[in-house]
Amino acid sequence: MSTPGPTTPGITVRTAHTSDFPVITDILVDTFATDPGFLRWIPQPDPGNRLLRGLFELQLQTRYATANTVDVALDEAGDIVGVALWDAPDSDHGALDEARLLPRLITLFGARTPQFLAQGFRSARMHPKFPHWYLYTIASVPQARGTGVGTALLTHGIDRAGEEAIYLEATSTRSAQLYHRHGFVPLGYLPDNDDLPSEFAMWRPPTMPR
Amino acid sequence: MSTPGPTTPGITVRTAHTSDFPVITDILVDTFATDPGFLRWIPQPDPGNRLLRGLFELQLQTRYATANTVDVALDEAGDIVGVALWDAPDSDHGALDEARLLPRLITLFGARTPQFLAQGFRSARMHPKFPHWYLYTIASVPQARGTGVGTALLTHGIDRAGEEAIYLEATSTRSAQLYHRHGFVPLGYLPDNDDLPSEFAMWRPPTMPR
Repeated sequence: MSTPGPTTPGITVRTAHTSDFPVITDILVDTFATDPGFLRWIPQPDPGNRLLRGLFELQLQTRYATANTVDVALDEAGDIVGVALWDAPDSDHGALDEARLLPRLITLFGARTPQFLAQGFRSARMHPKFPHWYLYTIASVPQARGTGVGTALLTHGIDRAGEEAIYLEATSTRSAQLYHRHGFVPLGYLPDNDDLPSEFAMWRPPTMPR
Repeated sequence: MSTPGPTTPGITVRTAHTSDFPVITDILVDTFATDPGFLRWIPQPDPGNRLLRGLFELQLQTRYATANTVDVALDEAGDIVGVALWDAPDSDHGALDEARLLPRLITLFGARTPQFLAQGFRSARMHPKFPHWYLYTIASVPQARGTGVGTALLTHGIDRAGEEAIYLEATSTRSAQLYHRHGFVPLGYLPDNDDLPSEFAMWRPPTMPR
């Protein structure tokens, strides 16, 4: 399952093992603890990032672990320097809305669980109704940013998608332009969510009929 | 409102007048009376194309007339040789589901009105949730087919859309390839509807954020 990052010398991308999950969770929490676009999912305040960490742990253990679509990027020393979370085309994109997860969500979010679920439904309904991979997030350790780790994870997922479509929400114009260079086209802005930064939905088309 | 068709010498495209509607209806009925992809909308049998004609009359008089998005193509003699029906981005794409139309739909479809409405809802829910023009249909008179009338109507609509997106359903691989040459990318096949030909949804992206 190990594939050299095609555009990034020294970076290797492989499927994550369960034993990688603590490191992956640390990277996700460090990356998104101050990201307003991401924190719209998390009731605030969240001292010690307890809710954010709990959410990532839950997502990794349930949705992403079973679908086998967690990728990690390794540097030449073999250390994990980045992670990408994908939903496969046959999965139920969007919110952690399965009834079996409800008790754990309530433990995390308490009385604010309905608010969290509503956010998920709002996001999920914007997904195109055509089969697609969903790139939920890419994150990397601070010292690896700007070194092509994100691009290595992205191209790995593009290669795996092959003839299938990919959907994602870009959180900045700069990232939208990077995705555009990798074959993604605009769908449009997501509906405004209070005064948080706008997210821009993009689509990497499937192949044409032959 | 008169604009020369940019790719088709001798063809002019302009907004339709109400006085054009009888000719337009004839062209639409002639074009789609034997089209299985289109006839999925019409309960069969339909002797004399009475339901098909009634549906086009209703659509022209209500949805398309008020939104002012019926275009006609004229030949050098000034005769109408083609028509395109568009929904503007702020319109309610899809079924004729407005309550005020229900009496006329029931007159047309009788007990089969719910079946007709269900078809419309199924199609409408596949539209991307992002603002877009919808190219409902293009039709031309038999003697004008293959002469670039369709392309003139399409490029007229693309020019009008400008920075905005366009959505359509291609009913053949050949038409999908034509749309692809005009900047449309694949979304995917629409869900199968019995054993009728598959329709292929396509998207002409809006401009990138700047």
